[in-house]
Amino acid sequence: MKHFLTTLLALAILTSCNHPKTDDAAVIKQIYSEALSDTSAYHNLKTLCTDYKGRICGTGKADSAVLWAENLLKSMGLDTVYLQPLMVKKWDRGEQEQGRVISSKAGEHTLAVCALGWAMGTGQEGITAEVVEVTSKEQLTQLGENGIRGKIVFYNQPMDPTHYYTFDSYGETVWQRARGASMAARYGAVAVINRSMSETHDNYPHTGIMHYADTLPKVPAFAVSTLGADSLSLWLKKDPALKLFLRSTSKELAEVPSYNVIGEIRGSEKSDEYIAFGGHIDAWDITQGAHDDGVGVAQTIEVLRIFKKLGIRPKHTLRVVVFMDEEVAQRGGAAYAAWVKDRKEKHLAAIESDRGGFTPYGFSIDASLTQVGRIKNWRPLLEPYGIWWFQKGGSGVDIRDLKPMDIPLLALVSDSQRYFDYQHAASDTWDKVHPREMQLGSAAIAAIVYLIDKYEL
Amino acid sequence: MKHFLTTLLALAILTSCNHPKTDDAAVIKQIYSEALSDTSAYHNLKTLCTDYKGRICGTGKADSAVLWAENLLKSMGLDTVYLQPLMVKKWDRGEQEQGRVISSKAGEHTLAVCALGWAMGTGQEGITAEVVEVTSKEQLTQLGENGIRGKIVFYNQPMDPTHYYTFDSYGETVWQRARGASMAARYGAVAVINRSMSETHDNYPHTGIMHYADTLPKVPAFAVSTLGADSLSLWLKKDPALKLFLRSTSKELAEVPSYNVIGEIRGSEKSDEYIAFGGHIDAWDITQGAHDDGVGVAQTIEVLRIFKKLGIRPKHTLRVVVFMDEEVAQRGGAAYAAWVKDRKEKHLAAIESDRGGFTPYGFSIDASLTQVGRIKNWRPLLEPYGIWWFQKGGSGVDIRDLKPMDIPLLALVSDSQRYFDYQHAASDTWDKVHPREMQLGSAAIAAIVYLIDKYEL
Repeated sequence: MKHFLTTLLALAILTSCNHPKTDDAAVIKQIYSEALSDTSAYHNLKTLCTDYKGRICGTGKADSAVLWAENLLKSMGLDTVYLQPLMVKKWDRGEQEQGRVISSKAGEHTLAVCALGWAMGTGQEGITAEVVEVTSKEQLTQLGENGIRGKIVFYNQPMDPTHYYTFDSYGETVWQRARGASMAARYGAVAVINRSMSETHDNYPHTGIMHYADTLPKVPAFAVSTLGADSLSLWLKKDPALKLFLRSTSKELAEVPSYNVIGEIRGSEKSDEYIAFGGHIDAWDITQGAHDDGVGVAQTIEVLRIFKKLGIRPKHTLRVVVFMDEEVAQRGGAAYAAWVKDRKEKHLAAIESDRGGFTPYGFSIDASLTQVGRIKNWRPLLEPYGIWWFQKGGSGVDIRDLKPMDIPLLALVSDSQRYFDYQHAASDTWDKVHPREMQLGSAAIAAIVYLIDKYEL
Repeated sequence: MKHFLTTLLALAILTSCNHPKTDDAAVIKQIYSEALSDTSAYHNLKTLCTDYKGRICGTGKADSAVLWAENLLKSMGLDTVYLQPLMVKKWDRGEQEQGRVISSKAGEHTLAVCALGWAMGTGQEGITAEVVEVTSKEQLTQLGENGIRGKIVFYNQPMDPTHYYTFDSYGETVWQRARGASMAARYGAVAVINRSMSETHDNYPHTGIMHYADTLPKVPAFAVSTLGADSLSLWLKKDPALKLFLRSTSKELAEVPSYNVIGEIRGSEKSDEYIAFGGHIDAWDITQGAHDDGVGVAQTIEVLRIFKKLGIRPKHTLRVVVFMDEEVAQRGGAAYAAWVKDRKEKHLAAIESDRGGFTPYGFSIDASLTQVGRIKNWRPLLEPYGIWWFQKGGSGVDIRDLKPMDIPLLALVSDSQRYFDYQHAASDTWDKVHPREMQLGSAAIAAIVYLIDKYEL
C-alpha cells in the first residue's frame, strides 16, 4: 500500500506541473477559430501548387518556389526571414516515357507509366523484353536467374487494404519501388516496372525515389498505374510470352545549390531557444505536390500567421522551416540539423507535417516517455478538436537528423485513407485538399506549439 | 483508505463483466479485414445512387429503390426479408425553378435556386418583389412589418466555420430553411429564399424540408447556392431596390403507401431479441443521396454480409432496417417503432448511420450512463481502427421513436468536415464517397453489433 501511495503521489506531481489551465482552452479555441475562418493557408497552398508545380529539387521550379516562400514570409511581418544553403541532387525525366504491350494473343496496348525518380534511362531506342510478374520477395528469389535473366520484372504486390493506417500498407510494399531494380538486376533483369503504390484504381502512375545498390548493375525502373498493372497481369495470363516496350530518356545531372527557407517570431523571454515546425516544399516533377507536401508548408507558415494575428507573443522563438529535398536525399533536413548542431541552438521541439492535408487526429512523438506523458496531459485541451491520439513513434524524415541532439520530435498524424490515392502522382492537386481538413492541421500544430512554448517539455 | 479500496473493488467488478477478451480483438480484426477488402457495399451504394437517384418518398423512384433493397437482401441468403407498410407524404417539385435578379444598377442575373421541400409554389406567373437581406432572427424582428411587408426575405446567415463539428453550425443556422418562411410571413413577406446550408462555396442550391406554422400564411420558399447568396448580397449593396423574380410550380399531393425493408439473421439463442441497425433509403429529389444516406443503407446491409461471410452466428437476431422517409416526416421511423411496440419486440440496441460516409471516429449514445459505460469499456478493441469517441448524446431521427421503450440508441459518428458540402444538393453523388472511409463505417457498426450481441448492454 505504501508503494501504491508513493506512486500516486509521484503521478500527481508529474502531472500537475503542466496540467492544462482553463485559459489555455480559451486560447486554443481562438487558434481554431482563426484557422477555420481564414483562407490564407488554403490560398497559399493553391498558389504553391498551381504556380510552382513539379518543383522537385534541382529544378528552376524549385528555385522559384524557394523565392515564393521567402517573399511570403517576408510579407508577414516576421522578426527574421533567411535562407539556409545546401546542395541538392539533380535529375531530368527527359521525354514523356513510353510503355507498350506487344502481343499477338493479347493485342497491343499502351500503358500509363513513368520513370521512378533517379532511375537511369533506357536509351533512345527503349527496351523490349518478355515480362515476369512477381508479387513477393520470396517469388523473386524462387524465380532466380533462370526465370528472370533478360526479362523485365513486373512487381505487382498490391498494397494490403486491410490495414487501417495506409502507411502500414505502404511500408510493406514500397520495397518494390525503392529497391526492386537492384533486387531484380541481381538475377539479370533488363528493367523493372512496379505497380503504383496506391490503393485506388485509376490510371495515374505514381513515381517516387528509388535506390540502386552500388554492387549491382543498374537497370531502368518504371511505375505503372494500378489499372495498368491489373491489365498487364491479365494480358500475361493470356500470353505469358508477351513483350513489353519501355522507354525513358531520364538522366542524372550535376548537383546544384538550393535552400531551406526560415521564418521566425522571436521569443520574448528565451529568444535563443526554438520551437521548429515545417513541411517540405519540393514535390515530384509530375505533380502539384498538394498533399505531399504543399499542405505541410502552408500549414506551418499558417502557424506563424495565427500567432501574429492573435497577438500571442511566444516566450521562445518560433521557427518555420520550409525544407528543401525531402523526396530525394533529405538534404534539407540534414542541412537544418547541421545548422542546429553548429550553432548549438537549443530546441524545445521540432514538428513535421508531411502526412497529407486530411483531418488530423494526433501526434506521433519521438521523445522520452516522460515527454510523451507531458504531451498526453494536454489531451483534454485538444480532444474537442478531434486530436486524441498521442503515441511514441516515428516523426518524419526532415527532422529525424535532430534526434542525436535529444530534441523531442513530433509528427502531425492525419486520416490516411486517401493519402496514397494521390502521393507522387499527377492527381495530387490542390483541389484534392479540403480547406477545413487542412486548416484543422494548422490549428493542431499551432495549439501544440502554444502549449510547448508555455509549459516546455 | 477503506473507502478508496471499496471504490477500487467496485470499479473492478463494474468493468470486469464485459471486459473485452483477446479473441474479440481477433474477430474485430476479421471484421475490418473483410469490410476493407470487399467492394460489395461500395457497389451497392453506386447502384442505389445511379439507378435510383431522386428517390424522395412518394415517388416511383422510391418505390423502385424499395424493390431493389428487398431483392438485394433476398439475394444474401438471410433468414427473413420482409416489408413494413406505411403511408408517406407526396410532393412534386414541378418545372425547373427560376431565380432572376432584375436591376438597372446591378444588372440582370440568373441565380441557382431550388424550392425547399414541401414548399408551396409561386403559381405559373412567379413572384417579383424587392428583397430584404436578413442575417439573424433578431434582425428579422427589428425589421418587422415595416421593413418586410410585400418583400422577399433573403436569409443569409452563413454556417459558422469555427465549429469543429459542422452539425453544430448546421443546428445554429437551419432555422432559416426549416422555419424561415412562416417567420417572415408573420411580417407580410411574399416569399423567402435562404442561403444554402453549406460551408463550401459553389453553385449548388441545397434543398431540405421546411415547415409552415399552421396559424400563419404560407409563402413560397427557396434555397440559393452559397455563391449565389454572396452575389445577391453584393448586388443588394449596389442596388437596395433591386427586384428578384422567383418561380416554382411545386405542389403537395395525396399520401401514398410505401415501405421499410427488413432483413434478418436469426439469433441462435435468443431469436426473439433484436439488435437493429439501419439507414434511410429516401433521398431528396434533386440528389443521388450518396452521403445522405445511401451510405447508411449500404453500410448496414454490409453488416449482415460480413456476419454471413465470416460465419459469425449471432445469439440475438440481427436486423437491418432500410428506413423510408427520413427526409420529410420520419414515417419510416415511426412505423418501425409502432411495429416494435405492437409486437413487444425486445431490442438490445438500435443503431443508425446517417451522418455521411466519411471516416468514422465513434458513437453518440442515447442510453443510461451504465450502458454508455459498458460501451466505453470496449474502446480498447476499437481504438486501433480510429473509433475512440463514445459520448452520451443524440442518436438519429429514424430510431428516436424507440426511446420511450428504453432501447439503447446509437449513432455512428463520422468526420463531419465535408458533410454539408453535399447534403441535399445535386453534388451528393456516389463518387464523393471514398470506399475506404465508407467501409470503415460498415466495420465499426459490425464490430459494435458483435460486441452487443456477445455481452449485451
